[in-house]
Formats: sequence, C-alpha cells, structure tokens
Amino acid sequence: MNNKFKLFIGAFCVLALQACSTITTDSKATLRPTGDLGVIIERATGQVQVVNHTSKEIISEVDGLGDLSHASIVFSRDQRYAYVFGRDGGLTKVDVLTDKIDKRIIQSGNSIGGAISQDGKLVAVSNYTPGGVKVFNSETLELVATIPASVLTHKPANKDGTPVRSKVVGLVDAPGQKFVFSLFDSHEIWIADFSTGELALTKFSDIGLFPYDALISPDGRYYIAGLFGEDGMALLDLWHLEKGVQHILKDYGKGDKKLPVYKMPHLEGWAMAGDFAFVPAVGQHKVLVVNTKTWQQVAEINAHSQPIFVMAQPDNRQIWVNFAFPENNTIQVFNTETFELVNTLQPGPAVLHMEFTPRGEHVWMSVRDNNEIQVYDTKTQQLLKTLNSKSPSGIFFTNRAHHIGL
Amino acid sequence: MNNKFKLFIGAFCVLALQACSTITTDSKATLRPTGDLGVIIERATGQVQVVNHTSKEIISEVDGLGDLSHASIVFSRDQRYAYVFGRDGGLTKVDVLTDKIDKRIIQSGNSIGGAISQDGKLVAVSNYTPGGVKVFNSETLELVATIPASVLTHKPANKDGTPVRSKVVGLVDAPGQKFVFSLFDSHEIWIADFSTGELALTKFSDIGLFPYDALISPDGRYYIAGLFGEDGMALLDLWHLEKGVQHILKDYGKGDKKLPVYKMPHLEGWAMAGDFAFVPAVGQHKVLVVNTKTWQQVAEINAHSQPIFVMAQPDNRQIWVNFAFPENNTIQVFNTETFELVNTLQPGPAVLHMEFTPRGEHVWMSVRDNNEIQVYDTKTQQLLKTLNSKSPSGIFFTNRAHHIGL
Repeated sequence: MNNKFKLFIGAFCVLALQACSTITTDSKATLRPTGDLGVIIERATGQVQVVNHTSKEIISEVDGLGDLSHASIVFSRDQRYAYVFGRDGGLTKVDVLTDKIDKRIIQSGNSIGGAISQDGKLVAVSNYTPGGVKVFNSETLELVATIPASVLTHKPANKDGTPVRSKVVGLVDAPGQKFVFSLFDSHEIWIADFSTGELALTKFSDIGLFPYDALISPDGRYYIAGLFGEDGMALLDLWHLEKGVQHILKDYGKGDKKLPVYKMPHLEGWAMAGDFAFVPAVGQHKVLVVNTKTWQQVAEINAHSQPIFVMAQPDNRQIWVNFAFPENNTIQVFNTETFELVNTLQPGPAVLHMEFTPRGEHVWMSVRDNNEIQVYDTKTQQLLKTLNSKSPSGIFFTNRAHHIGL
Repeated sequence: MNNKFKLFIGAFCVLALQACSTITTDSKATLRPTGDLGVIIERATGQVQVVNHTSKEIISEVDGLGDLSHASIVFSRDQRYAYVFGRDGGLTKVDVLTDKIDKRIIQSGNSIGGAISQDGKLVAVSNYTPGGVKVFNSETLELVATIPASVLTHKPANKDGTPVRSKVVGLVDAPGQKFVFSLFDSHEIWIADFSTGELALTKFSDIGLFPYDALISPDGRYYIAGLFGEDGMALLDLWHLEKGVQHILKDYGKGDKKLPVYKMPHLEGWAMAGDFAFVPAVGQHKVLVVNTKTWQQVAEINAHSQPIFVMAQPDNRQIWVNFAFPENNTIQVFNTETFELVNTLQPGPAVLHMEFTPRGEHVWMSVRDNNEIQVYDTKTQQLLKTLNSKSPSGIFFTNRAHHIGL
C-alpha cells in the first residue's frame, strides 16, 4: 500500500473525491511494463535515474544510494528490481515500478560488483573489505551465505585482529546456480555452486598473477580473467573443469610497452562476434582480434587511443569503442567483418559507458562531464536525443535480466 | 480508468471506505512487471493464457481470438502487448498488464505468421489468401503497407476476378527495419526494407522450389528457407546481398526416402549452438548436425522418431526434441558436445511446443491432448509442475521481445 493510500485511509475518506483523482492517477502510473526500462548511475550524487528507451525519456530519479563510484547493476528475473552494487558496500534494491528503494543494506566495507543466480533467487556481491563474497536472498536481502576469501598469511592482521583476506573481483553468474569469481591477491578462481541448496566450493589455484577482472561468454561456458601481474589471461572452461585453468593470449597485457597505462580496460566489455572476440589492448592504441576457437590473436585494429570498453552491437555488425582519459571524449565505430573504421564521434568529455537497446537500433552513452546521456542511431551514427543526467556513469537496460552473466 | 473506478466515481464516493479497499487491491494488481510473463495459445477455444514463469502460474485467460490453429506470437518492445497471428487472418493485440484484448482486426482470409520490426513500430503478417504481406502500425493496428505477392499467371483468376498470388511463408524481422519472407508458389525470397520510412523491396527469384518455412540466425545475418519441392535449402546472407541466394545442404529434404513424412519440421526450431546447427531431418528418425561455417552436414544423431522442433537450451549444452504424430508423446534430450542421448521423457499425448525460461533453468511444454502444460528442470529433467490448459499449442515468453527474429 503506498503512502497516498495510508494517508487516505487515515483521514477516513473525508476528502473522498479529491482522493479519488489522486488514486486514479496513481493506478494509471503503475501500469508500466518493464521491457523497455533502464537504470542509469548518477555517480556523484548517489542517485539513479529510471529511464524508458522507447520514448527516450527519464521517468524518475531515486535518491539515497550512497557511494556509486564504479557501481554496477543486475536485474531481478521479472525485471521489477534493480540491484545496485555500490562501492561503499551498499546493496540497494530499487523498484522500477514505483521509483523507490525497496530495501537497502550495507553488506561490507568496500565492494566491487555483483551477480544474480540463474533462477533469480540469489544475489551475490564481491567484496574487497573484508575480502570474500556474500550471497543474499534476492527478495528479502537476508544473508544466505558468506564465502570468506583466502587468508593472506604474509600480511599482518587487521586492526581488529581478523586476518587479511584476498580481494574478490570478476564475479559473474553461470548456469546451474553457480557464481564464478577471482581472488586478486591469492591468484585463484573459485566456483560457488548453489544447485543443491547447499554451498559447494571448487577452487583453482595458481591461475596467474593478480586477476583483476573477468568475463563470461554469453552461453556461460568460458570464464576469462585478466591478469594484472603478468601478460596473458586465465581461461576456465566450465563444461570441462577437469582441464583446469589454461593460460591464453600469452602476449596480452602490459608487457614492456613504453606507453603509460591510464586505465586497465574493462573485460565485461569484450565483444564476442562470430568466431572473434574484440579485445581492448592494454596501454596500446589498438583493439585486438582474437579467434575464440584457438584463443590466438589474429589481427589488430588501430584505434584513436587506449580502448576501455569494446562492445558489439546485438547484430554483431559493428563494435563501438570508448577510450581512457585524457582521450575519453571520443567514440570509434568499426566494422566487425572488414575491421575498417566506420566513424569517429566526439560526444563530449568523459564518455564512460555505452548500452545498446535490446535489438540494437540505438545506443545510449553517458557523457559524464557534460552531465548528459546521448542516444545514437547505430546504423547512421546520428545523434537522436540528449537527456540530462548528473555525472552519469553506468547505463543498464532491463533486458539484461534475461542474459547469462549480465 | 477501469470499470471499478467508473462505478466508484459514478456513485460519488458514497461507499468510500468499501471502495478504498477495492482500489487498493486493483492498484496492487496492476503493479505487474512484464519480464517473467508469457502467453500460451489454447488453440481449440480461441483463447490465450497469460502466465508467470517465476511463480509457474496461470494469471488469466483471454477470450475471443478466433481460429488459433498454427497461431504464433510476437511481443511489443516494452513487453506489454502480445500480437497474436491467427489462422483466420485475425491479428489480435493482447494487453498482458490488463489481461484484455487491446485491439483486434481481421486483416486477411488466411494468415500464417508474423513479425515485429527492430524498432517495434511495425507489425507484419504473412498471408496465404490473398497472398502477400500486410504491415501495420503496432500501436493502432492501422494499415501501413500492403505488399502483394507475385501473380501466378498460370492459374485461373479468383471468383472475384482478382489474380491468384503466391502464398507467403517464413516471415521474419531483420536488423535495419527489414522484413524477410519467402513466396511459396513463385519460388522467391523478398526483403521489405522500411528503414527510410518508405517501403523498398528487394526480390530474389528462382531460389529453389516451394520454400515452405524459414528461419533467421540469432544475429539476423543468415536467412534460410526450407524447400518442399526439392532437396537442399536456400541461404541468403543479409550482409552480402550481392552474393544472391545460395543452395546449401544439397541432401537435405524428402529425397526418395521410404518413410512417409508425417509433418514437415518447423525450421524456427533450428538450434544453433556454437559452430553447429542441429536440424530436424525430414521424414527420418534423425537429427542432423550441420557446420554453420561450411553449411555441410558433419554428423547425424539417431532419434526416437521424426523430429519436429529441435531446440537448444539458452546455455547451448543440450537440445530438446519433439516428434511427429503418432510418436508425439515423447521428448528426447541430447548433449550438444558429445551428441549422446541424455534422457527420453514421455510427457503425454501430443507434445506440440517447448519454451525455455530466459536463462534456461526450466522448460515449459504444451501437452495438448492431456490439456496441460508441464514445467521441467532442464538440468535434471525432472517434472516440477503441471498446469491446466485447454488444448495448448504455442508457448511464448516475453523475453522474445528482445531477440532479433523472434
């Protein structure tokens, strides 16, 4: 029952007619399908915007979500709730039908991302402090399981006497009620399997030095972690755990490049199109093309600057690339078949994130330092609309609810 | 404004408190997200059921949809409306938030299927009588374009003097505001392009004898039509129209098999998993495995009977197969990597259709002659729930709104 109703009943319907009109409006307002909604992070103000990507409009703004730097979102399987993972350890469940916070907890001191289980009943959060994963009931946000990360025995204990544990990164969901994640300081990949109702952990050690982020292929088969401490990447085939973790793309990484690395690229942004993955090179002005059968690099594409996100349109015909500071006012579009440059756009300062509409006709971009969202036609690369948003970063559309690993 | 509200206002709120409780219930009822909904065809009674695949419940039943034999459905991009294509030429727009028919027209004498454009603004219907495609405004169902099929000059005119035109089959949407379809009697594939606002037609002739159905790959690149009049299939690469239509899988079809063909398989059911397409053989007790790079058959899997639908789980690990009458009480599940039989189920008489939940943890089946829907766990193949439904056929979940070609 919403607040207007409570007020209405509390006043014993003295002002019945006036209340009627209020209620009618409310009732209409709630007839909102959720297929074309999205949520945008306004990082500086601890707010999110609920948007509609058919009408290209901001529907509402929701306050009180805490520190949203580097925040990300997953959606409930019915698309009603956005689970917002904040940097301050906050886990906030936002109701996109009522434009309100449904529940909010502070679940750790410092978190980095989250995931939702295949059946939608569990939400997992990966934490830096204390290092580990916490798993919550997606309806109530009650704690279901705590998975402490490996203890770092070479480090002195925390001030409260507890041992220091590895930071956890690259948390994703996988089919069969699994969560997969990487342990940055202890060089591990773990699988948490909730398929029996009880937690079962499978651990892979010595997977490579300092995994810093990871992705999972759209079918949920391949988990790939980037390595901060060495070149190459760690690949785990979830259909064949007996093969263990393989070291792939041996030349991928910082190497001994002369260019400073302004920002490690986001691995979530890997574009998988046909047989190829399009991968942001680390520190170089290139997008690498990798054959996903052999995991060998087959080509490289010269780009404007150091790429951060490399994202494929839903129809796989083009990839859209944004870049690290100080060249982050630019977007480039490449053809996935010929690798040719299609267009170079300059949306404005600090283009942080892109999100395609589900069937790919439009792409939304957050242009943080212009305080705006820009919407482009993917085919013509023409700007269609600009929306006001306060320091926007991540853009998340509700169709993610139906994708493994998103 | 719903009827309860009209009554309420009409009575000048005399029974304000009583009405309040009614409104509260109503208001709650309309708070319905659309991400986990579906619509099931009840073919014998001209009805559809609106279902929720999280709670595994029937929400409502909607009457008055006419002849629903062979009916299919597409969804609006916001997931609020189901467009139901009936065999009697009816096009019905069902509102899954209010459980009512929003609009209904009879647009031809005999129709076979439909599609929705990439931007969600156009709904196209393929017709047998009169042969052609009609395109409607998805909001109003007002006619936007009529695309008459080729005239069959060798046939005598219709009774009303109009020429007989080819039947149209295999209509799908493609990226860039395109619809692609096949002309059964005139052996053509046409592309209707609405990207400029004006209709532009591209026609391919002599594509093979009697295309009877078609599919499009999940990225919208390859359109493949089955041929009733000869072996092999017609392939059109929508990225390279200059290559024209290619003839692939030369041995695919009825050939000179001794087995009677009880029913031509549905091509929409092709499972594309990794490099392979899993294809129902025509008239044989086999599922064929085709390499989608070379379009050559690489293996065949022995199956229970003549397959109709061969469908891949969203995680691509298994395919689920149903069969033609009289063996249509059986389902088989195969491993996509080893091609081994995983399980044989006997849900009951006339298992007509299957639909996976978006992330693939469950599969719903219509068991027509038991008047029931059965829900299975895909991993264990255990029956989880049975729901009552009157002669159910097609099952369509709203996540189709976000997929090219669905």
